[in-house]
Amino acid sequence: MNNPPLITAPSGWQLARRAARMNPSVIREILKVTERPGIISFAGGLPSSKTFPVAEFEAACAKVLRDDPAAALQYAASEGFGPLREMVAENLRVQAASAGLTWQVDPAQVLITTGSQQGLDLVAKVLVDAGSRILVESPTYLGAVMAFTPMEPEVVSVASDDDGVDMEALRQAAVAAGTGEAARFLYVLPNFQNPTGRTMSEARRAALSTEAARLGLPLIEDNPYGDLWFDAPPPAPLTARNPDGCIYLGSFSKVLAPGLRLGFVVAPKAVYPKLLQAKQAADLHSPGFNQRMIAEVMKDGFLDRHVPTIRALYKSQRDAMLEALAQHFPASNSQPDQSLTWNTPAGGMFLWARLPKDMSAVDLLPFAVDKGVAFVPGAPFYADHGDPRTLRLSFVTPSVAEIHQGVAALAAAIKERQAA
Amino acid sequence: MNNPPLITAPSGWQLARRAARMNPSVIREILKVTERPGIISFAGGLPSSKTFPVAEFEAACAKVLRDDPAAALQYAASEGFGPLREMVAENLRVQAASAGLTWQVDPAQVLITTGSQQGLDLVAKVLVDAGSRILVESPTYLGAVMAFTPMEPEVVSVASDDDGVDMEALRQAAVAAGTGEAARFLYVLPNFQNPTGRTMSEARRAALSTEAARLGLPLIEDNPYGDLWFDAPPPAPLTARNPDGCIYLGSFSKVLAPGLRLGFVVAPKAVYPKLLQAKQAADLHSPGFNQRMIAEVMKDGFLDRHVPTIRALYKSQRDAMLEALAQHFPASNSQPDQSLTWNTPAGGMFLWARLPKDMSAVDLLPFAVDKGVAFVPGAPFYADHGDPRTLRLSFVTPSVAEIHQGVAALAAAIKERQAA
Repeated sequence: MNNPPLITAPSGWQLARRAARMNPSVIREILKVTERPGIISFAGGLPSSKTFPVAEFEAACAKVLRDDPAAALQYAASEGFGPLREMVAENLRVQAASAGLTWQVDPAQVLITTGSQQGLDLVAKVLVDAGSRILVESPTYLGAVMAFTPMEPEVVSVASDDDGVDMEALRQAAVAAGTGEAARFLYVLPNFQNPTGRTMSEARRAALSTEAARLGLPLIEDNPYGDLWFDAPPPAPLTARNPDGCIYLGSFSKVLAPGLRLGFVVAPKAVYPKLLQAKQAADLHSPGFNQRMIAEVMKDGFLDRHVPTIRALYKSQRDAMLEALAQHFPASNSQPDQSLTWNTPAGGMFLWARLPKDMSAVDLLPFAVDKGVAFVPGAPFYADHGDPRTLRLSFVTPSVAEIHQGVAALAAAIKERQAA
Repeated sequence: MNNPPLITAPSGWQLARRAARMNPSVIREILKVTERPGIISFAGGLPSSKTFPVAEFEAACAKVLRDDPAAALQYAASEGFGPLREMVAENLRVQAASAGLTWQVDPAQVLITTGSQQGLDLVAKVLVDAGSRILVESPTYLGAVMAFTPMEPEVVSVASDDDGVDMEALRQAAVAAGTGEAARFLYVLPNFQNPTGRTMSEARRAALSTEAARLGLPLIEDNPYGDLWFDAPPPAPLTARNPDGCIYLGSFSKVLAPGLRLGFVVAPKAVYPKLLQAKQAADLHSPGFNQRMIAEVMKDGFLDRHVPTIRALYKSQRDAMLEALAQHFPASNSQPDQSLTWNTPAGGMFLWARLPKDMSAVDLLPFAVDKGVAFVPGAPFYADHGDPRTLRLSFVTPSVAEIHQGVAALAAAIKERQAA
């Protein structure tokens, strides 16, 4: 056969303006220093693989392929698998009821997404124009900012304390000072936040809900960790308080497994049809096979038996980290400027800590890695000026023994830098 | 527990400008008329579920969950599963070699996507600004236009004949007359196109490849059906002729199953990193479990044994449709204006037909449905003025008996309308 010449003329790729704003994850770059065998990692954002219900997945795969392979493997509806949408709606209704709220979620409002990350992408596509003002907590979940960025928003950080966003700061941020342009939404992660582990209090939720409704400010409520509470469930979702003013995002990644890439969006009638069209354009639909697997696993209340085992595991890991921290940093209460300080997350996967005065987490990291432990510096999680002393510690993947060893290594690194 | 009042204040949802351009699929709306039990459908775009290798999927699921469940169910790399990326690269190399071309695909250039639909979404995000000129064939795949639309391009239709896009029309369309703005890319589906079933000839590919390189016009080459040839493989891909000037999109949906939602993009160094960042922002990564399932099924050359069975099935179905058409429309050669006319696709799933003069496929559809058969009118597949006489007939899902029955019903409907 003839072999036509390979064409080597210069090609005319012209990137979209938004491409200049898309960048490799800062954290991924920082963490390259930690990719060394034998390092105890508090840096990960991964759930513990011990929590994956492998036997149940095996049984579900076999059943789904036996019962209706033609449907499970075929193209499917963009909205998602009907029975799964019904389970999502029912679970949310039950959870809200147990928190004392009536939230009637219509399965028709549920859109199954390819991980809740895709929910964020669809929200941005439908609600964000180039230059649109959007509000985030301080600090905030970086993956959300990464999902919003391609739509070229102006991301405005709203001052936040241990209970969530500050109400006075929110009022000031909701409308741009110069142009009078209203923010398109406030993005919040109220339960066991990534990165801080903090939980928005009931009082703050009530205030935020009222204030957002008064301002006409839509809320995007992201809740990947809400089921992972340790002693008591978190307060009811913001969306349950004002369903027409909120979009709610949930995930199966932390209660079942991330590798199936399934999450969901609950949206009011004002935006659902557009989210659905954006979904259809983005990937037609999320894998029907995976949706049936998860529906099969979840039926008969499996999560009610399974999730408590995750809670118990993560709580014991958190306790181990708190114990190790108290042991290695005894001066945290008496001399907070000379010691590491930290919070006590009531659920989830992360603990938030702060280094002694004048110490930077980014600068400390290579020294910590030399001692055998990795963490994520906190500054990149802020949409504006980050606090360089902060860091995020994940307690879910290392063993209890490794947690003690890792905290000892962290203490040694800090001591050494203080002496330097 | 206290039940806080449900907030009912009006909410301030403001949709992005692009949302106004996102609409429900025209075809989906048209096809609502066909949703009636007992209708023989030539309207579908679905592969035949008879071709799904169910037993192989069962074995693969079990093996993947037995061998390394912790990795298969965990978060994974945005680029995709390494062994699958290597198989994709190797398959493309082998296919190009059998067509006489040397195409060294580096696995590092392969990005696994959530269906090839997501590849189109990522391409638009990375290459299209609001108002950017992009070129498509006439007619073109509607799902691509749907994927590009949220980035607000100006979609320009390039006149095309049975061999593909017209070169003179392409030269005129490549640069906007008024502004001198160069088109960002030409989107082409060269093999057994959806909707027309046509294939771009070797001569046209050579000409297009040379001309696009001369113009500095990037090509987006979509190839979901290329493996489904009937008598001989199609000519080598455009991308194999100029890898730096093309992005290639492929899919596992037509050779394995759509319900796992996996496809891939092969992109040059100039754009790969940005596509990867867009992918990470869109859904972090495609389901790792599914990627391992497909890699497991594909190893040891399964596709070399499996795909020929799909080709044989679809060819027999195409032949049945050609036979039925020849039988019911004997005047197609002698009096093309008085009869239905059609092409002879060399592979894929679709046949393209044209109604007698002054007859509209949209108008005919409800009458055809009354006779018991459905099809898709062709006009919506054109980015500009569509030919109202055209229609798309899928031959892959009905049985041979149903194909004969459906074509008879179509002929009856046309005869009745001609007499009316």
